Amino acid sequence: MKRTKVVDALQCTDFGKDINVKGWVRSHRSSKAVDFIALNDGSTIKNIQVVIDPAALDPEQLKNITTGACISVTGKLVESQGKGQTSEIRCGEMEIYGLCPSDYPMQKKGQSFEYMRKYGHMRLRTNTFGAVFRIRHNMAIAIHRYFHEHGFFYFHTPLITGSDCEGAGNMFQVTTLDLDRVAKSGKVEYDNDFFGKKTHLTVSGQLEGELGATSLGAIYTFGPTFRAENSNTPRHLAEFWMVEPEVAFIDQQELMDLEEDFIKYCVRWALENCKDDLEFLNKMIDKELIARLEGVLKETFVRLTYTEGFDILKKAQDNGVKFEFPVSEWGMDLSSEHERYLVEQHFKRPVIMTDYPSEIKSFYMKKNADGKTMQGTDVLFPRIGEIIGGSVREESYEKLLAEIRARGMKEEVYDWYLDTRKYGSCPHGGFGLGFERLILFVTGMQNIRDVIPFARTPKNAEF
Amino acid sequence: MKRTKVVDALQCTDFGKDINVKGWVRSHRSSKAVDFIALNDGSTIKNIQVVIDPAALDPEQLKNITTGACISVTGKLVESQGKGQTSEIRCGEMEIYGLCPSDYPMQKKGQSFEYMRKYGHMRLRTNTFGAVFRIRHNMAIAIHRYFHEHGFFYFHTPLITGSDCEGAGNMFQVTTLDLDRVAKSGKVEYDNDFFGKKTHLTVSGQLEGELGATSLGAIYTFGPTFRAENSNTPRHLAEFWMVEPEVAFIDQQELMDLEEDFIKYCVRWALENCKDDLEFLNKMIDKELIARLEGVLKETFVRLTYTEGFDILKKAQDNGVKFEFPVSEWGMDLSSEHERYLVEQHFKRPVIMTDYPSEIKSFYMKKNADGKTMQGTDVLFPRIGEIIGGSVREESYEKLLAEIRARGMKEEVYDWYLDTRKYGSCPHGGFGLGFERLILFVTGMQNIRDVIPFARTPKNAEF
Repeated sequence: MKRTKVVDALQCTDFGKDINVKGWVRSHRSSKAVDFIALNDGSTIKNIQVVIDPAALDPEQLKNITTGACISVTGKLVESQGKGQTSEIRCGEMEIYGLCPSDYPMQKKGQSFEYMRKYGHMRLRTNTFGAVFRIRHNMAIAIHRYFHEHGFFYFHTPLITGSDCEGAGNMFQVTTLDLDRVAKSGKVEYDNDFFGKKTHLTVSGQLEGELGATSLGAIYTFGPTFRAENSNTPRHLAEFWMVEPEVAFIDQQELMDLEEDFIKYCVRWALENCKDDLEFLNKMIDKELIARLEGVLKETFVRLTYTEGFDILKKAQDNGVKFEFPVSEWGMDLSSEHERYLVEQHFKRPVIMTDYPSEIKSFYMKKNADGKTMQGTDVLFPRIGEIIGGSVREESYEKLLAEIRARGMKEEVYDWYLDTRKYGSCPHGGFGLGFERLILFVTGMQNIRDVIPFARTPKNAEF
Repeated sequence: MKRTKVVDALQCTDFGKDINVKGWVRSHRSSKAVDFIALNDGSTIKNIQVVIDPAALDPEQLKNITTGACISVTGKLVESQGKGQTSEIRCGEMEIYGLCPSDYPMQKKGQSFEYMRKYGHMRLRTNTFGAVFRIRHNMAIAIHRYFHEHGFFYFHTPLITGSDCEGAGNMFQVTTLDLDRVAKSGKVEYDNDFFGKKTHLTVSGQLEGELGATSLGAIYTFGPTFRAENSNTPRHLAEFWMVEPEVAFIDQQELMDLEEDFIKYCVRWALENCKDDLEFLNKMIDKELIARLEGVLKETFVRLTYTEGFDILKKAQDNGVKFEFPVSEWGMDLSSEHERYLVEQHFKRPVIMTDYPSEIKSFYMKKNADGKTMQGTDVLFPRIGEIIGGSVREESYEKLLAEIRARGMKEEVYDWYLDTRKYGSCPHGGFGLGFERLILFVTGMQNIRDVIPFARTPKNAEF
């Protein structure tokens, strides 16, 4: 008999029909008259209840079916008497695929997240991580749908890069040189390395993305990105996923419209497609979660300049608000606490901050006429701080080259990038979204290591 | 005025209306009475024709608008007199965003693909590569749609892996050790490396994918994968994209059904959504292309065992067919020429080959009762050979452990993988699709370096 997924069986009202379900035992309660097994197959947060007449099965066998065991059950679908359940299954036949020894690490409920991180390969079988990774899937789908519907092309930028970019100190080196031989010979011969030169893992696909945008019109990247920062915090990963759309012929206003529309689309998608998982997380992890998501949809994002934001923060500080990093003078970089003050305390809704001082931002961002500020468009979110970093790009060949030189960067490394401005240059812009930050926001989880299946952090590359 | 994309402008029949289009000049023809500019913005393979009254513009300026220049044109949309075009635009106002100097590398038409590879950052602006990368986008969208519609969850397996797998000789090492210092000190201190041990770039996400499938029920990966093989061929990349679905509770027949249904969905998606681009490629690159794609949809794939396939090949050889690698004895690995003979010459349709000798396949594949063959399900395609490699996985803890030991693999490296069989094991299977091979098939292109935006190959990591 063809298997029915639990998500479908629970919605089926074709009572009296025989069906087959397969899955893992979440709990098993026994009494003399009847056994109840809560069965989950990963298709939904909800379990289907299997009702068993203990007399019909081998008692030894039945006793062995403990939490974590994998079974197949065929039987009649019946209307459930239990509250909040629609259907359950009366066990006719059962096949045991795999029992679960008592040292199963996910045996007990209510283990700490820290404990579960150690068992990253098994935590996927818990309710919380099932919910998180179904939502993560849905957010990825929402991203692809949004961009496809809006005429953007998914563009695969390379992960291994030969560009010796700024910030190379925080990059992972990629090599086929035998390190033991390097140590023995005392020489590093890049001529013999796979690519014939020093290569790294990319920290961003944006520059290559601009090549796509200035030919295909509008592209987005969505892939892994790497930072070799030695940061052991709940906000940092060495390997994480980034979404980087890049659009030709867009101006600063349109870019802000795109950012707001895009992120609202994702949040709306979660509310409409992940109801059960969100309700579970709202109950177990973060009681404000759903209200916070709905809040984002209701409000128009505040749009304010860095200068306006700085003045608000300065005034707040003068009025007694304490920041860990004091608000000192115009031109300083804002930190997460400042961003969150503006979003959570002052405006009580998301903020798009624009026109940052050029000096604290990247070389490729378009400067305003004042020569001091640039056309940035960062989105600041409650709980997260900066969730999107965006800007219009400098499209003038002369200005971009001057900026590269002024910053002491290696001109020859960027010749291919400069060519986009040399040949048929066009106004364009784009942004980057840290995918795990979006997932933190949408799930209410606190630690970024808990929203990616297998976290890579300093001293940790398990599984 | 809001910009209209060329793809939309060409479909618009609201003649007489003023619109704005922006894009890059593909060609500019001048005469005394009228100038014609073919404008492309990447949204479609088709250009929109801009009709210009030369008297209305500065003649110097007009002369400078050469192939590759970027302009914005506002004017009246009119019905086109030209054959095969619906609409064109009568230029009212023009703004020049960026001129294009005469050393523009994509100036001349009909350059070789080898030449264009050197200008990988500019080749995106040509008709062929525009078509290829719009199709690549569409294939990615088809993949996500298919799996989402079928209840699979997109699952992000790690790229940096600490598992010192078999085949580590072909892996890239990832490190933050300073190689110059390693050479100077004569020591490789992995304690000081970022992850505290030797790490590599993954060659497959399958093993981690199985962790996802045995908890979420059905997952797929879709991401970059790496092989440090020193192969300078039109079929090899050091960095390429793989799709790896993995499903709990699937048997060999269902897995074959899934593979066939999936790949037909992708091909159908291309035919339905990439008509203009396919027609272009059919005309310019491969006259059989569309017929070949339609052929795949029409036919049911042949399903045959390795043994049956081997016998056909042996008989063909006995009857005079010459293979570069002779068909010797049962148990040998088949090469691409053998696979293509079966598909292109013998059956003239795609083949799913099953039940290979266990010895030539991976340790995790489920053996048949004969002890000699395994439950493989590889899909062989015209022009490509193996496009999908799949199998049912061994779900027995004891058998899997015995196989790991028999192959002399390090048991302790696979403890987390073995846990899926130790705790609530379930029957499951999956497959891997080389994304670029699919794109080769769907575009008719010959060289794998031409279906990924920025190819990584030995001695080459440009851009």
